[in-house]
Amino acid sequence: MDGTPGALRTSASLSLRLGQALFSTASLLFMSVDVQFYSYTSFCFLVIIMGLLIPWSSTLALFDIYSIFTRCRLRQPVIMVIVVIGDWVLALLSLAAASATASVTDLLTSSGQAYCPPKFCGRYQLSAAMAFLSWFLTVASSLFNLWLIASF
Amino acid sequence: MDGTPGALRTSASLSLRLGQALFSTASLLFMSVDVQFYSYTSFCFLVIIMGLLIPWSSTLALFDIYSIFTRCRLRQPVIMVIVVIGDWVLALLSLAAASATASVTDLLTSSGQAYCPPKFCGRYQLSAAMAFLSWFLTVASSLFNLWLIASF
Repeated sequence: MDGTPGALRTSASLSLRLGQALFSTASLLFMSVDVQFYSYTSFCFLVIIMGLLIPWSSTLALFDIYSIFTRCRLRQPVIMVIVVIGDWVLALLSLAAASATASVTDLLTSSGQAYCPPKFCGRYQLSAAMAFLSWFLTVASSLFNLWLIASF
Repeated sequence: MDGTPGALRTSASLSLRLGQALFSTASLLFMSVDVQFYSYTSFCFLVIIMGLLIPWSSTLALFDIYSIFTRCRLRQPVIMVIVVIGDWVLALLSLAAASATASVTDLLTSSGQAYCPPKFCGRYQLSAAMAFLSWFLTVASSLFNLWLIASF
């Protein structure tokens, strides 16, 4: 069952993890570099969640690389359960953060340029879009691993 | 495996469905009665999603009641898969709607009474809280049913 596509220690899992790390880094950078994100609670929430998702995805990507190169296929359900719970929690938090950011950006955009200059609004929107992509890949990882646990 | 707690056609599942219907109705009423919710995209989104969640939960609650009283335990994986997918989609949408509503309410509250009179703000907050509770119960139903499918 270790060969389930997308589950931990496969090349599909590595691709998902790299995608998560990439999109969450992009979301964090679009939101935090040269933008006063700390004026809005939702934007601070997004920055915190993306700041948690980046080390989580990177660590699991390194773990996948190690497992693929050493062909080491450990069967430890406890680790799988921890990974699935971590993925689940981060996926839910990143969906909440992305939705919150998108809704606040929409409200600011409709309030006019005094609240949201076009340069900033575009970056907020890009950041929310990257967070949604990151969430999608995290859910995919989580589902593949949950399926693997259930079929033990 | 039909006896999995919380899975379709058990009394635990019926309780979860009734809770979902109750909280989503409360969320819809707090948001829509005597409040101009259509001025904000996030609030419209919440009303639409709660409007979808109420008939979904009520139908499945009726299905549970019928199964419990007639002691009819059909084994049809196709129905289970449809229920799990429906629960999943509605759970994700209700989390997104609840987060969006909460973030916009927070922004309006911090903008001062001109944008959000205390009477309205309290109702927005209550509506978001009810939507979060409804989401939590939908996720629980979805997980129990997913576990049942995986263990077929």
